[in-house]
Amino acid sequence: MKYRIGVDLGGTKMFVSLANGDGEIFRSQRVPTKALQGPSIVLNHLKSIVNEIIAQDGISLKDVEGLGVCIAGFFDIRSKRIVSSPNLPGWELFPLEDELTAQYDLPVIVENDANAAAYGEYVFGAGKDKNNMIFITLGTGIGGGIITDGKLLRGSRGFAGEIGHMIVLPQGPPCGCGKFGCLESFSSGSAIEREGRMLLQEGRSSILSGLAGPGSVLSASHVFAAAREGDKEALKIVERAAYFLGLALSFTVNLLNPDVIVMGGGMAHSGEIFFNPVRRCLEEAAIAPAAKMVSLVPSCLGDEAGVKGVLALLDDHLQGK
Amino acid sequence: MKYRIGVDLGGTKMFVSLANGDGEIFRSQRVPTKALQGPSIVLNHLKSIVNEIIAQDGISLKDVEGLGVCIAGFFDIRSKRIVSSPNLPGWELFPLEDELTAQYDLPVIVENDANAAAYGEYVFGAGKDKNNMIFITLGTGIGGGIITDGKLLRGSRGFAGEIGHMIVLPQGPPCGCGKFGCLESFSSGSAIEREGRMLLQEGRSSILSGLAGPGSVLSASHVFAAAREGDKEALKIVERAAYFLGLALSFTVNLLNPDVIVMGGGMAHSGEIFFNPVRRCLEEAAIAPAAKMVSLVPSCLGDEAGVKGVLALLDDHLQGK
Repeated sequence: MKYRIGVDLGGTKMFVSLANGDGEIFRSQRVPTKALQGPSIVLNHLKSIVNEIIAQDGISLKDVEGLGVCIAGFFDIRSKRIVSSPNLPGWELFPLEDELTAQYDLPVIVENDANAAAYGEYVFGAGKDKNNMIFITLGTGIGGGIITDGKLLRGSRGFAGEIGHMIVLPQGPPCGCGKFGCLESFSSGSAIEREGRMLLQEGRSSILSGLAGPGSVLSASHVFAAAREGDKEALKIVERAAYFLGLALSFTVNLLNPDVIVMGGGMAHSGEIFFNPVRRCLEEAAIAPAAKMVSLVPSCLGDEAGVKGVLALLDDHLQGK
Repeated sequence: MKYRIGVDLGGTKMFVSLANGDGEIFRSQRVPTKALQGPSIVLNHLKSIVNEIIAQDGISLKDVEGLGVCIAGFFDIRSKRIVSSPNLPGWELFPLEDELTAQYDLPVIVENDANAAAYGEYVFGAGKDKNNMIFITLGTGIGGGIITDGKLLRGSRGFAGEIGHMIVLPQGPPCGCGKFGCLESFSSGSAIEREGRMLLQEGRSSILSGLAGPGSVLSASHVFAAAREGDKEALKIVERAAYFLGLALSFTVNLLNPDVIVMGGGMAHSGEIFFNPVRRCLEEAAIAPAAKMVSLVPSCLGDEAGVKGVLALLDDHLQGK
């Protein structure tokens, strides 16, 4: 039996999995990335994790057919280098794919993490059999990936699918990317947290104060909980986040006419208090024939979507697709 | 030798061409559509034009291999019907493709006109050899089409590429589609005309008044000309139109990472007074790695893009691609 290795290389954590040719994962390990130590040390660390994982199943690298890695950054599919990554500082221009190929002497593919997660949800998850799919991941930041005609849409260099940095309101709040008014600056978990903190500081929400508790760290889920309990100010935050998300999704619907929009990330299970206004805005803003037919569903694969997707992409690659 | 027929069925005009298998057009005719007479009468009229055109070259329908038609409306590629079309009122749910197949007893394809024009520019025009391309047509309205990985992106039902109706400013000016603040309501020829007329009515632009002349019909090109002559109010109109176009294009760049954006339609040759601010806004608003590599060019094929594109799509179809 032949094995494959899938890696999700994030800014804070690395997720390493051993799988078979059908993408079934036998064993996984999650460790801190320590990205600031630079690519060489991180890749050495990865290698030791890989060796550890396969040794536990009594196999060697000779039994492994290929390695798929997805990363939190812009990976140029032509130059095979990381072009930029706020999550992996200092990795710019690192020849990740060639380096991995040299280290493992195996077929290697590298893909952006949100693109890989989109493909994972398409092959194994909430977008199964939906050949035209938008994937959006709503967490600390907002990422995205696009499936058209059953294929991952990469664009010219692999930078496609950047839903989170469409500017939905020029001169809006500052975004981590350096611009202002990106979708991420309104509708990400960190944006909702930021607005919630302002409510607390201004003493405008007793329900939220009660939920967050004194001295505790406020998170977006507290804001959602307060909104569900009838806190009008918290509800305003949730509805504004939902409104701009619906607006941005209407752009993807107009441009791409998808069957389904799959929502992943920590906020995917925020429930109807969030998704109802998202759906309402999307339906109002998108062109009618495309808006009517698209459904909005939560993702299935959770934080395994990236690894599963990169394993599916590796499988396509090994089959010469 | 085998021939093909390409038709661009617009709201006001029909463009009918006879071509060979390489998409070379031998003969064309342009006639009013008279869309309001309904699909049956228009299709009879089309048939007589087709017969007339081929008779002039001494050929018969037996020498014709296929018919490609592009139309100004939402054509559902699954049901093979026109779902809606502001330009062809009363054609909703008309089974255009089946009707044409029955009438001509030939392989027939039907495509949205902007999608066909995008494919035309990709195969024969300004997007040649650029596998990832955005096409936008700037005329009375704003249409668009998308090429990814060398293929026309249709989406689930063929409604993809609707760049003109992305809402770039909620609660903006009314758009012909019934919504408010669509790109078309800011950056189309008719939007620029509307703003120019307001300038004239309010007596705020002597240069524009001089150019338009008393009693003459103001067009967008008068506004561009006045801006070029230093009319500050006209320049504001042009720059606002350019700003929102650049913003909408930044959405397409973030989502699709194209090599090139091809601008067609009447405004494609407005020059640097328009394209400089479009480019500036696009570069500021889009993600850096994708913005850096995309170029903005005028289309080459003019109003033949639709017919040429539908002939190329017909060729793919006949070759079983």
